[in-house]
Amino acid sequence: MKIKVIIPVSTNKWNESVEADYKRLKGPQTSIDIVHLKRGPEAIQSEYDEANVTPFILEEVTDALRHHVGAIIVYCFSDPALSAAREISTIPVLGIGESSQLFAMGLADRIGIIATVDQTIPKIRRKLTAKGFSSRFPSIHALNIPVLDYDQPKKVMKKALDVVSLMVNQDRIEALLLGCGSLFHMKERLEGHFSIPVVVPGEMALKHAEMLIELHLSHSKKSFMTPLPVKVH
Amino acid sequence: MKIKVIIPVSTNKWNESVEADYKRLKGPQTSIDIVHLKRGPEAIQSEYDEANVTPFILEEVTDALRHHVGAIIVYCFSDPALSAAREISTIPVLGIGESSQLFAMGLADRIGIIATVDQTIPKIRRKLTAKGFSSRFPSIHALNIPVLDYDQPKKVMKKALDVVSLMVNQDRIEALLLGCGSLFHMKERLEGHFSIPVVVPGEMALKHAEMLIELHLSHSKKSFMTPLPVKVH
Amino acid sequence: MKIKVIIPVSTNKWNESVEADYKRLKGPQTSIDIVHLKRGPEAIQSEYDEANVTPFILEEVTDALRHHVGAIIVYCFSDPALSAAREISTIPVLGIGESSQLFAMGLADRIGIIATVDQTIPKIRRKLTAKGFSSRFPSIHALNIPVLDYDQPKKVMKKALDVVSLMVNQDRIEALLLGCGSLFHMKERLEGHFSIPVVVPGEMALKHAEMLIELHLSHSKKSFMTPLPVKVH
Amino acid sequence: MKIKVIIPVSTNKWNESVEADYKRLKGPQTSIDIVHLKRGPEAIQSEYDEANVTPFILEEVTDALRHHVGAIIVYCFSDPALSAAREISTIPVLGIGESSQLFAMGLADRIGIIATVDQTIPKIRRKLTAKGFSSRFPSIHALNIPVLDYDQPKKVMKKALDVVSLMVNQDRIEALLLGCGSLFHMKERLEGHFSIPVVVPGEMALKHAEMLIELHLSHSKKSFMTPLPVKVH
Amino acid sequence: MKIKVIIPVSTNKWNESVEADYKRLKGPQTSIDIVHLKRGPEAIQSEYDEANVTPFILEEVTDALRHHVGAIIVYCFSDPALSAAREISTIPVLGIGESSQLFAMGLADRIGIIATVDQTIPKIRRKLTAKGFSSRFPSIHALNIPVLDYDQPKKVMKKALDVVSLMVNQDRIEALLLGCGSLFHMKERLEGHFSIPVVVPGEMALKHAEMLIELHLSHSKKSFMTPLPVKVH
Amino acid sequence: MKIKVIIPVSTNKWNESVEADYKRLKGPQTSIDIVHLKRGPEAIQSEYDEANVTPFILEEVTDALRHHVGAIIVYCFSDPALSAAREISTIPVLGIGESSQLFAMGLADRIGIIATVDQTIPKIRRKLTAKGFSSRFPSIHALNIPVLDYDQPKKVMKKALDVVSLMVNQDRIEALLLGCGSLFHMKERLEGHFSIPVVVPGEMALKHAEMLIELHLSHSKKSFMTPLPVKVH
Repeated sequence: MKIKVIIPVSTNKWNESVEADYKRLKGPQTSIDIVHLKRGPEAIQSEYDEANVTPFILEEVTDALRHHVGAIIVYCFSDPALSAAREISTIPVLGIGESSQLFAMGLADRIGIIATVDQTIPKIRRKLTAKGFSSRFPSIHALNIPVLDYDQPKKVMKKALDVVSLMVNQDRIEALLLGCGSLFHMKERLEGHFSIPVVVPGEMALKHAEMLIELHLSHSKKSFMTPLPVKVH
Repeated sequence: MKIKVIIPVSTNKWNESVEADYKRLKGPQTSIDIVHLKRGPEAIQSEYDEANVTPFILEEVTDALRHHVGAIIVYCFSDPALSAAREISTIPVLGIGESSQLFAMGLADRIGIIATVDQTIPKIRRKLTAKGFSSRFPSIHALNIPVLDYDQPKKVMKKALDVVSLMVNQDRIEALLLGCGSLFHMKERLEGHFSIPVVVPGEMALKHAEMLIELHLSHSKKSFMTPLPVKVH
Repeated sequence: MKIKVIIPVSTNKWNESVEADYKRLKGPQTSIDIVHLKRGPEAIQSEYDEANVTPFILEEVTDALRHHVGAIIVYCFSDPALSAAREISTIPVLGIGESSQLFAMGLADRIGIIATVDQTIPKIRRKLTAKGFSSRFPSIHALNIPVLDYDQPKKVMKKALDVVSLMVNQDRIEALLLGCGSLFHMKERLEGHFSIPVVVPGEMALKHAEMLIELHLSHSKKSFMTPLPVKVH
Repeated sequence: MKIKVIIPVSTNKWNESVEADYKRLKGPQTSIDIVHLKRGPEAIQSEYDEANVTPFILEEVTDALRHHVGAIIVYCFSDPALSAAREISTIPVLGIGESSQLFAMGLADRIGIIATVDQTIPKIRRKLTAKGFSSRFPSIHALNIPVLDYDQPKKVMKKALDVVSLMVNQDRIEALLLGCGSLFHMKERLEGHFSIPVVVPGEMALKHAEMLIELHLSHSKKSFMTPLPVKVH
Repeated sequence: MKIKVIIPVSTNKWNESVEADYKRLKGPQTSIDIVHLKRGPEAIQSEYDEANVTPFILEEVTDALRHHVGAIIVYCFSDPALSAAREISTIPVLGIGESSQLFAMGLADRIGIIATVDQTIPKIRRKLTAKGFSSRFPSIHALNIPVLDYDQPKKVMKKALDVVSLMVNQDRIEALLLGCGSLFHMKERLEGHFSIPVVVPGEMALKHAEMLIELHLSHSKKSFMTPLPVKVH
Repeated sequence: MKIKVIIPVSTNKWNESVEADYKRLKGPQTSIDIVHLKRGPEAIQSEYDEANVTPFILEEVTDALRHHVGAIIVYCFSDPALSAAREISTIPVLGIGESSQLFAMGLADRIGIIATVDQTIPKIRRKLTAKGFSSRFPSIHALNIPVLDYDQPKKVMKKALDVVSLMVNQDRIEALLLGCGSLFHMKERLEGHFSIPVVVPGEMALKHAEMLIELHLSHSKKSFMTPLPVKVH
């Protein structure tokens, strides 16, 4: 029961912490293979960044399919390349965004998302709307601290407390989704402070992947049809 | 990691098959405690039946809370007593309806539900709408074979093939949810016949419960607030 | 033309004022029979409370059906047991919540609801959403004064003026629904202060019941199907 | 308690039957004043027809306001001039379309509308959507017999049985709204045949008007603001 | 390629500025014929005003059809008489409201509208909802300066900066629609100040009309059916 | 006023017919520069194909920005790379899908889309939903003739007549969108046969681009924010 985790940025900066978290949480039969991209941008904030990592994600997916893994996780809250990857695959391909949105809807009625920077909000909103989920996610706010500064936890936490405070009191959210893989160290502190469930997307996707493997389930090939053969130049 | 499974009908008819299925699928650290109700109706088809099982489900939930289980599953697709049970609980209480609806939305865009009898359709539809999910579940049809006749598998399967055929071809569903705990033996045959994922609600809820226990997550106490003390006569 | 009014709490605290209001408003041919519950909680704030009153409401409904009343009103804004009661009945069963929500939509585009305590908001919101009405009710706020303290009208009114002020100015509501049977003494004062229609749910339900009796109309037995016979233990 | 009923077409063809129906149903204190228009088209099928009756409806409304009636009913399912009439009025102005749509939503989840001719369907649909009701009215079909031929009841009934049959079986409607004032003689026959509630819009509006008068309620002047003074040439 | 522009108010106050703007923007083959109404109100703020201009707009439309113009523009953001005019016409009839709403959705996800006075907001909101566009227009605010004072540009601009500031910062709009034909002089200043696209409705409608003429397209006669013949008195 | 048209497939098969169509329709001041891709797939049917053309589209967009064109059209109904292209651009970037969807909503209430193959339907539906347009596009059907066979017009037309017949009669569409750039030769025949407007997406995008250039408008940089600088490997 092997799960390949694609961290879709061209830095190994996150590999270690994701690995530690996944080792702690995975089931005994699960083996985890974490890769980052060799090429492309070091962070994904815009749809342009997303477009730029897509070919490299699909390369990693194709490689995973050759090596008979049980499931694939794309470790970015924006779920880049997710539909395309599912089209070429019959094994489960999960995005930490979609997985965590689904599970969060099982925890609360009104869910908030904190994003890293404003640049990512329109695309998160469009994806939620495309799935019909927007009524359940009435509040998305950004910390507006660039993703590569996220190793300064005090700065990030202070800003996070301010932003989430507003989301709880004004937008009346009842659970919080950490809308970037890089925010997961905040979970406990925010949970303690606001007394609402705080969801770490990557953790949801791991458990989601294990569950699908165990239940022999994968996405519908009618929703994500196998591409017709086409000449490529 | 103990999970209490409440089969909310006053017959032990389903205990054995649920137990077999759950034993096969549960994680190594999970122990399962399956109970049925001592009193109330033998089947849940209407909202009236649901009202009649509710007090006995809440008794079982209260009992489970005293015995320090890790999570509770209400094993009925209509999710009777779910919100009330969550209000009095801080541990996860899951309904096989909601859990499987969430997971199904991760497998396909357009999902169909087969129900046992027409009587159950309005309440299924109202609950999907209340959660904001109706755009993803465009097709709900009943087999209209009373739930207590479900031990005649040939009769059920023939009807099921007809009904699902219509749902796939006319309503264009891309995955199928078996909208009653009693239908789970059909999964493989329908999956083979229609080449779409067929979801057994009870299986989803089991994995969902294990996941929440492992991740130390439970429903928001802002969505399901602890009842204020009130005098009871 | 007899209407049975079920005040679904185990106190006779409200009987007198409801009776006075209904006597004043009822048509000449209408006779009113008001009952409260003998058992169960004294107030309904949570879905748990609602579950606890449901069996006793259904007993009263069954009793009413035996005594050939013309319509039944469940006098609680949460409409507990409403669908179940309709399933077992062919005469109209009305909830003061639903009746007043319907009529309020004939008075204004954007309607606000004031609730007693925050605990009741999630269930009010879920029920509005289940009926497809949420776009018309953009603002629900609680006074957060426990329902049993409602006999201190000054305290309640001061808080109400603050809360409704916010709903009118910020959420731009254009009519107000008093989201608990116990708030009806506020109608005139709030109406005068904010120049918007203020709707007393119980009054709407009375007129709604009379109208349905006169027009020989009742709820659809396709939306609220008669329960199939089932063995009960 | 005087109610003015405006039949907004330039023929007295309907006055008698509406009067008979209203006399039968009105409360003892209600007096009914039925008028038709002196000018304009003899039937309303298009939005163009609606535009052409609007000035004459507003004249009748203005006249009614001078004569201190208690409420005004515009007796046409399309509710022509309704918002404009409410703007210039503080007494209730009701349209038989809106009143019956509101009541029908209290009787069933999925409601069908039969219209006279296809020409009226787009405007009925737009008005339902504008009010946020479209999810509750999934089926609108026309008899396509011109409104002025409606005195041949056999022809109309045969067509109606065919059309409603399709709406019940295929679109799964659970109640039926007779989407033109001229169809009301069909109520009993269709109700008997299909076992679903059949709603006569005009009857709903009468009871709605009486209710609002008795409860001293009228539409919100924030939803239907009094027009600012403006120079007219 | 002649376009008739109907300014649907009984004043020639706007003719000159609309003409100047349209002359500047029109294509070389377009000729513009601008008319205002001889009768009716001098401004359109309420639905009542709208009802009062409708017959005169339809007269102008009928006149235009006799003179073989290529398209008709109704120059008012409320789009009075639009559907009726389309029913009697096979050439394009455009409203500056609808045209600009369509194009604005091609420029931004979340669009704000500034209206002249609060009186116009309910009808703008109802029309957006009727078209299914409300999720894209989350913010509508009025300047509340009567339309006939709009020649004092300083007063108007100061208020506009305040109002739009709130819309950008609190409601997070990403583009702005000037919701009255009389506001178009503000475009550049607001665009410079807030760095978002500011859309002048009349300009959109002109280009929309030219495009439809060039592409030989007009509205569907199934959405706007030709009125059936009816006797008119 | 130069418009660059990117036909995002690696074949020059469509260049000539697009050029002919655009030459015929463009304004006198417009110059058109049509390019196809040098690399990537020859057709776009799946989201996988879309992912594969995205980098090459963005290259062409970047190239266009260097050469100071006035607007860019991506000539594929799926609008591949549209958001990413807008993020890196301040000049208008239009997709023939979105442009034609906007315009079609100005022509009819209920619009149908014919697609080439079933594979493209899920992604078209998701994109419509993401924009909030799904209520206006109730019918999407595929011809299921691979895109590269589209030069056999008789075969295509016969199938199209069958499919559209069903869409008009059963789904009651009121206008038709040709959901692939390759279908545009069908416009006149289908329009004649069904008497509904038939929209050629590419033509809409051309006129849309000219309009935006003339009006000095472009997409909001708040909806499509400029990507933050990020290190790329």
